[in-house]
Amino acid sequence: MATSSQSEGGATFSAERYFATQPPPASLEHDVARVKEFVQRQLKEGRKVVLVTSGGTTVPLELNVVRFLDNFSAGTRGSTSAEYFLKAGYAVIFMHRQFSLQPFSRHYSHSTHPFLDFLDFDPSEDPSEASHIVVRPSERTQLVEVLTTYKAVQRAGTLLTLTFVTVNDYLWLLRAVSQEMSLLGRSCLYYLAAAVSDFFLPRQKMSEHKIQSGKGSLHIEMDQVPKILKPLVQEWTREGYIVSFKLETDPDLLIPKARQALARYGHQVVIGNDLHRRKFEVVFVSPKPKVSAGASAEDYEESWLRIDLAQNPQKEIEEDIVAELVKRHQQWIEAAGTQSALTAR
Amino acid sequence: MATSSQSEGGATFSAERYFATQPPPASLEHDVARVKEFVQRQLKEGRKVVLVTSGGTTVPLELNVVRFLDNFSAGTRGSTSAEYFLKAGYAVIFMHRQFSLQPFSRHYSHSTHPFLDFLDFDPSEDPSEASHIVVRPSERTQLVEVLTTYKAVQRAGTLLTLTFVTVNDYLWLLRAVSQEMSLLGRSCLYYLAAAVSDFFLPRQKMSEHKIQSGKGSLHIEMDQVPKILKPLVQEWTREGYIVSFKLETDPDLLIPKARQALARYGHQVVIGNDLHRRKFEVVFVSPKPKVSAGASAEDYEESWLRIDLAQNPQKEIEEDIVAELVKRHQQWIEAAGTQSALTAR
Repeated sequence: MATSSQSEGGATFSAERYFATQPPPASLEHDVARVKEFVQRQLKEGRKVVLVTSGGTTVPLELNVVRFLDNFSAGTRGSTSAEYFLKAGYAVIFMHRQFSLQPFSRHYSHSTHPFLDFLDFDPSEDPSEASHIVVRPSERTQLVEVLTTYKAVQRAGTLLTLTFVTVNDYLWLLRAVSQEMSLLGRSCLYYLAAAVSDFFLPRQKMSEHKIQSGKGSLHIEMDQVPKILKPLVQEWTREGYIVSFKLETDPDLLIPKARQALARYGHQVVIGNDLHRRKFEVVFVSPKPKVSAGASAEDYEESWLRIDLAQNPQKEIEEDIVAELVKRHQQWIEAAGTQSALTAR
Repeated sequence: MATSSQSEGGATFSAERYFATQPPPASLEHDVARVKEFVQRQLKEGRKVVLVTSGGTTVPLELNVVRFLDNFSAGTRGSTSAEYFLKAGYAVIFMHRQFSLQPFSRHYSHSTHPFLDFLDFDPSEDPSEASHIVVRPSERTQLVEVLTTYKAVQRAGTLLTLTFVTVNDYLWLLRAVSQEMSLLGRSCLYYLAAAVSDFFLPRQKMSEHKIQSGKGSLHIEMDQVPKILKPLVQEWTREGYIVSFKLETDPDLLIPKARQALARYGHQVVIGNDLHRRKFEVVFVSPKPKVSAGASAEDYEESWLRIDLAQNPQKEIEEDIVAELVKRHQQWIEAAGTQSALTAR
């Protein structure tokens, strides 16, 4: 096939080889220090912590980046879910793609709901008086609600925001954050909603300058990004409750691919969503509770979650996704107690 | 070379073949109707009109878009320039990449200057009173200025915003807008600041579903986007004053490539900028005024424009770029008068 395709010949990087050959982002140390302080404080204050990853990653094709490969994601799922986790009492590490949506400010997208449109000069006052900017009546109720929660979260110090752009930033940051979060034992949840590239161009193969458009066509050959869930589950954070996402456009692939991921990495939940139905339908795929130690690991169960947007257009499916996960995470924490109790006998 | 590279074998589409084989975006008709109405109104009210294109274009790799190739551009140049054109009395058609920066709201990026951070509840009032959201004193002066200009522009009806995402959206829209603008004769200016992909994947070659990450690496072979400046200058808008941009990372290529573009397309100005110096330095490359009809078309002149950000960190180079272009555009309009006068003799 002459167009987008894969060959069997490309390099697959193990996570170990990846981190040994690709350079860390410049901001990593600074970010890790912030995460360390944040995790310590939540530990002291007894809060559960969720890492929410959100937005797409880029794959730069040039060292002086002009062109890059990108994954589709505005960051709606992640930013919306982060708000509901905060409301549920979690501390949230919100690790997002630069310029993707963020909790709270997401309600005021510059494209669809620009805030300049709902500010007015108070007509009852002297217009030269700079202080008399007012919020239009129709917008007040929502803004008061958003602003109240936003300020409460700031006061409580329960939201830490980290930023990535490239898939390389993302991988280094995820490893570092998960290692810090492992201190929390079962009290930490991973909500990996970012759309991460499967492919990357190793630094060693990148062109220094902008690729010139000559007479011909552009060929790009990229290597596979290491399957990062594997070391995450098996090494970096062995007690965390891990939720990954599968986005597909072919509905027939959704459940098989979700099961495959669970079989391969051994984590707790895959949330499957179809590109065109993701605002009102997702499926939770998870291993069946083991009846005995001998139960087959191949046994998975699906649980569909749907909302009716025709009936309730304001409803956000993330509210129900988060409620379900908070419940499952609590069971996971309590199961550890049972296990320790059993072990202690 | 095994990685990003070009071959001589790829297909090059003429503009004609491009539009004959690639489908128009669904919103095109609606957008064209808005442009038609806007141009007619500005013509009646005697305003000059500038088309500002801004932000990067995407190249989808799949029909159900998950992955795409993107060009780097936040839209700073375009959105900032659009504001200065409005201040200079132009009507502006702002054709921008979805979610890239826009005039006015650009001052309040959610990442660097989030507006929720400068709203407060008035401490002197009953906090349950929804109306008492106030702007922090430190932010008032700027917000009053931005809001005043924003509202004046809305009242005057001098800003029309159009949105594109893919390079295909961009090409169709540019053709249609320029055909409508050609009615304005020499009173229209083209400020083509968008970062447009040089490559695309023809619809006929796209994969329907998300490309699955198998064991191998990803190969992408793309075709060249037609050189759209050619029909723009020679067919669609023969009297418009056309400014294109060249962004390079290798400073040695900047002027040769700018001259090459002028020689190839025959338009008025190329503004060259280096990726790392573009906030404080650009170069205007243009044909030398012809002394006689026999002057060589190969004669170009450069005029550098630099600002001192150390001395004046608030200064925006776009203010000076726009001032220079307004002057040149006026000369262009007046030159037509001279020409007609000469012809009339």
